Amino acid sequence: MIRLTRRYRFSASHRLHSPALSGRDNAELYGRCNNPHGHGHSYVLDVSLSGPVDESTGRVADLAALDRLVETRILSRLGHRDLAAEAPDIAGSIPTSENLAAGIRASLQAHWHESFPGREPRLDRVRLYETPRNVFDELVLR
Amino acid sequence: MIRLTRRYRFSASHRLHSPALSGRDNAELYGRCNNPHGHGHSYVLDVSLSGPVDESTGRVADLAALDRLVETRILSRLGHRDLAAEAPDIAGSIPTSENLAAGIRASLQAHWHESFPGREPRLDRVRLYETPRNVFDELVLR
Amino acid sequence: MIRLTRRYRFSASHRLHSPALSGRDNAELYGRCNNPHGHGHSYVLDVSLSGPVDESTGRVADLAALDRLVETRILSRLGHRDLAAEAPDIAGSIPTSENLAAGIRASLQAHWHESFPGREPRLDRVRLYETPRNVFDELVLR
Amino acid sequence: MIRLTRRYRFSASHRLHSPALSGRDNAELYGRCNNPHGHGHSYVLDVSLSGPVDESTGRVADLAALDRLVETRILSRLGHRDLAAEAPDIAGSIPTSENLAAGIRASLQAHWHESFPGREPRLDRVRLYETPRNVFDELVLR
Amino acid sequence: MIRLTRRYRFSASHRLHSPALSGRDNAELYGRCNNPHGHGHSYVLDVSLSGPVDESTGRVADLAALDRLVETRILSRLGHRDLAAEAPDIAGSIPTSENLAAGIRASLQAHWHESFPGREPRLDRVRLYETPRNVFDELVLR
Amino acid sequence: MIRLTRRYRFSASHRLHSPALSGRDNAELYGRCNNPHGHGHSYVLDVSLSGPVDESTGRVADLAALDRLVETRILSRLGHRDLAAEAPDIAGSIPTSENLAAGIRASLQAHWHESFPGREPRLDRVRLYETPRNVFDELVLR
Repeated sequence: MIRLTRRYRFSASHRLHSPALSGRDNAELYGRCNNPHGHGHSYVLDVSLSGPVDESTGRVADLAALDRLVETRILSRLGHRDLAAEAPDIAGSIPTSENLAAGIRASLQAHWHESFPGREPRLDRVRLYETPRNVFDELVLR
Repeated sequence: MIRLTRRYRFSASHRLHSPALSGRDNAELYGRCNNPHGHGHSYVLDVSLSGPVDESTGRVADLAALDRLVETRILSRLGHRDLAAEAPDIAGSIPTSENLAAGIRASLQAHWHESFPGREPRLDRVRLYETPRNVFDELVLR
Repeated sequence: MIRLTRRYRFSASHRLHSPALSGRDNAELYGRCNNPHGHGHSYVLDVSLSGPVDESTGRVADLAALDRLVETRILSRLGHRDLAAEAPDIAGSIPTSENLAAGIRASLQAHWHESFPGREPRLDRVRLYETPRNVFDELVLR
Repeated sequence: MIRLTRRYRFSASHRLHSPALSGRDNAELYGRCNNPHGHGHSYVLDVSLSGPVDESTGRVADLAALDRLVETRILSRLGHRDLAAEAPDIAGSIPTSENLAAGIRASLQAHWHESFPGREPRLDRVRLYETPRNVFDELVLR
Repeated sequence: MIRLTRRYRFSASHRLHSPALSGRDNAELYGRCNNPHGHGHSYVLDVSLSGPVDESTGRVADLAALDRLVETRILSRLGHRDLAAEAPDIAGSIPTSENLAAGIRASLQAHWHESFPGREPRLDRVRLYETPRNVFDELVLR
Repeated sequence: MIRLTRRYRFSASHRLHSPALSGRDNAELYGRCNNPHGHGHSYVLDVSLSGPVDESTGRVADLAALDRLVETRILSRLGHRDLAAEAPDIAGSIPTSENLAAGIRASLQAHWHESFPGREPRLDRVRLYETPRNVFDELVLR
C-alpha cells in the first residue's frame, strides 16, 4: 500500500459571516475576517490517494487523471474567485477553511469513481493550507 | 554594514481592473484576476534595513521600532482588507503587487525618520510574495 | 470531522545531561549536546485539534482560545529560556525533544477543558521541530 | 510514545519503462518520464520511528544508529546513481517513486533489528518526496 | 522600478565529465557526480525581470509572455531530459549548474526582445537551485 | 560570472548582554534575550562565492574546499556551543546575529586565500538566518 500526495495551489477571497448570527455576534466571532469587503488567501491544497501498486506500471494511480479531476472540479471553480459568492456549492454558506476542506473532499468524492476507470485508488485525505500557519485536514471516520 | 530582513504576513483580497481600459481590454489583460468578485492572497512581506552595527548594543536597528512601524502603517491597514476598496492610498488604483510593493515602501519611508529617533538605519528593500511563485522587489535607483 | 493544525514558534536553549549516568557516559551518549554551556534551537510547534464543524459558525474550535492557551502555558514559559534550568516542569529533567514534546502535550491537556468552554475539541497531536531535519510527534495510544 | 522523523536527501536519476508493456504503451503511460535518456530528482527522504522514551536517556532511539543504517543501506547506494541500472534491488524493475519508497522501507526493515541492539524502536513510516509537489508514503497494514 | 521574480521547476539528469581531463582526473574532480550512469535533480528556476511599472496596467511586464518564453525555450527542452545528451546547446559540454545557469540566461536573452513587443523589461537574473543547499546565480557585469 | 551559494546549519545558544550598559538598560534593550540563562537558535548559514567559470571543469570553485573551510572554521567551533562563552572570537562580546554574521565573514576571509590554492573565488556574501523571520546579511562596501 502506498499513499501518493499531490500538491495544488489556488488563490481566492472569502468573507466569514454566518446568516444564523447577528451583526454584532458575527463581528465578535470572526473579528477581522468578518470585514464586509472580504480578504483572501493563497491556498495550498494537498490531495492524497492510496492503494496497492500496480505491478505492471509501478504506479498507485493515474496521476494525469487526478490532475484532470482536481483541475475540472476544484481549481477552475475556486481559483481567482470569491468563495461565498461564486462557489457556495463547494465552500458552503460560511466559507471557513473547515467547510472548504470538507466541500473539496465531497466534490472530489462525487466524481472519484468515474475519474479512475479500471483501477480506483482510495481518496485518502484532503489537506488545505489557508496560510503556512493554519492547516485543515478533512478527516474520515473509518 | 549589516542588512537585517524581517518577515511579516498578511492576508488580503484584490481585483485587478484598470479604469483607463475598456471592459474587454481589462478582461484580456488581467484574465481571471479581473473577476469582479475579486480573489485574494496570503501575502508575505520582507522588510530589509541596513546600517552600521552599534558597538554598545551589537544591533543594526531597534527591531521593536520596526515592528511598530510595520504594524501601524501596513499590517493593520492591509490585513483582512480588500486592497482596492479599503487601502487605495497604499495599493494604488490598480492593486497589482507591483503597485502594492511600491506603496508599502512609500508608506514606510514616509514615517521612517520619526520611527527611528537617534540611530536611523536605511530602508533597504521591500519584498512582497504574492504567492510562493510570484515575488516582487521594490527597487531603488541609487 | 476536521483537524486544524496551527503553527507556533519559540527559541530556547538546552543541554542534554542525564543525572542517572556518569560524566563519561553522558559525553558518549549525547556527544556535543552534552556541552556544559548548552546550545539552542529555533523550535517550531504544531498543535493539532479535531472535532465536528459547528454548523452555525463553520469552525471546529475557537482559534483565539487556542492561541491564548498556547501563549500562556507554553510560549511565555519556554520562549527565550534555558529549558532544563527554567522550565523543568514542562521539559523534564533531561530536556530532549522527546521529553519536551510530551511535556508540552501534558501542559496543554491539563488546561484544555477550561480553555474551551461549551464546545471542546480533541487535542489531537503535538509536533515539535527541533530543526528542519528532526521532528518529534507526541503519539497517543487510542 | 513518541515518533521521531529524520530527514535525509539524495539525488538520483531514473527512467520509467515497464518491460511488460510495448514501446507505444510505455510512451503513453509514462509520457516524458519514458524518455530513454532518463531524468532525475533531488529526493527528500523522511524516516520515522516510534517507541517509548527511555527514562534514563530521554531518547526514543539512538539517532546515530539510524544515521548509520540509512547511510549504509540507502544513501550510499542510491545517491548519484541511476536507480534502474545501479540499484534495482531497492528501486525495483520500474523505478517509480512508489516502488522506490517500498524498496527503501524493505531495505531498512531487513537490517532494522541488528541496527538497534537492546532498545529497538518501530520503523513507523518511509516518506519520499520526488519533488515538492509529489510525495509518497509507504503505508503499513496494521 | 520593480523587479518581478517568477519560479519554475523541471527535473532532469546530468553527469559531470570533462572531455579535457583524464578518467582519473574526472573521478577525482567530480567524485560521485562523475558516475557514468548519471544522476538527477529536481531543479528550481527563478527568473527575474525588472523595469518601470506601466501606469495604465500596474504591471512591470506581461507575465503570460514570460511564461511562454520560459516554457518554449527552457522547460520543454530541459524537462525530463539528460542535459548533456539532449540539451548541450543550453547546458554546455559539461552540464554543471554553473554552465546550466549561464546557458539558460543566454537562451532567454536570445529570444527576449521578440518575446516582449512594445514594453521590454530587463532580464535581471537567472537563479538555479540544484538542491535546496546549492544555489547558482548567473551574474551580469554592469 | 556565477555566484554559488551553499547552505549550512548549526545550533547554538546565546545571551544578549552589553558590558557597556547597566543591568536595567540591558533588560530594557534586549528584553527576553537578556535572560541570564540564555536561549538558542537553529541557525542557517548561507555562504556565497563568485567568480568566472573554469572552462575545463565547468565549476566556479572547489566545493569540497569550501565545505572544509566552513566546517573547520565555523561549524566545528559554533555548533552546539554557547556563543558568548565559547566562541567570543567569532561572535564578539555581544553575540547578536549582526556581530555573529560579521564575525563569520571575518573568519572565512582570514583563511580564504589558503583554502583555494590556484583559482580563488571571491567571498561574496554571508547570510545568517537566526529564525525564518530574522535574516542578517553581512554587507561589504565596494
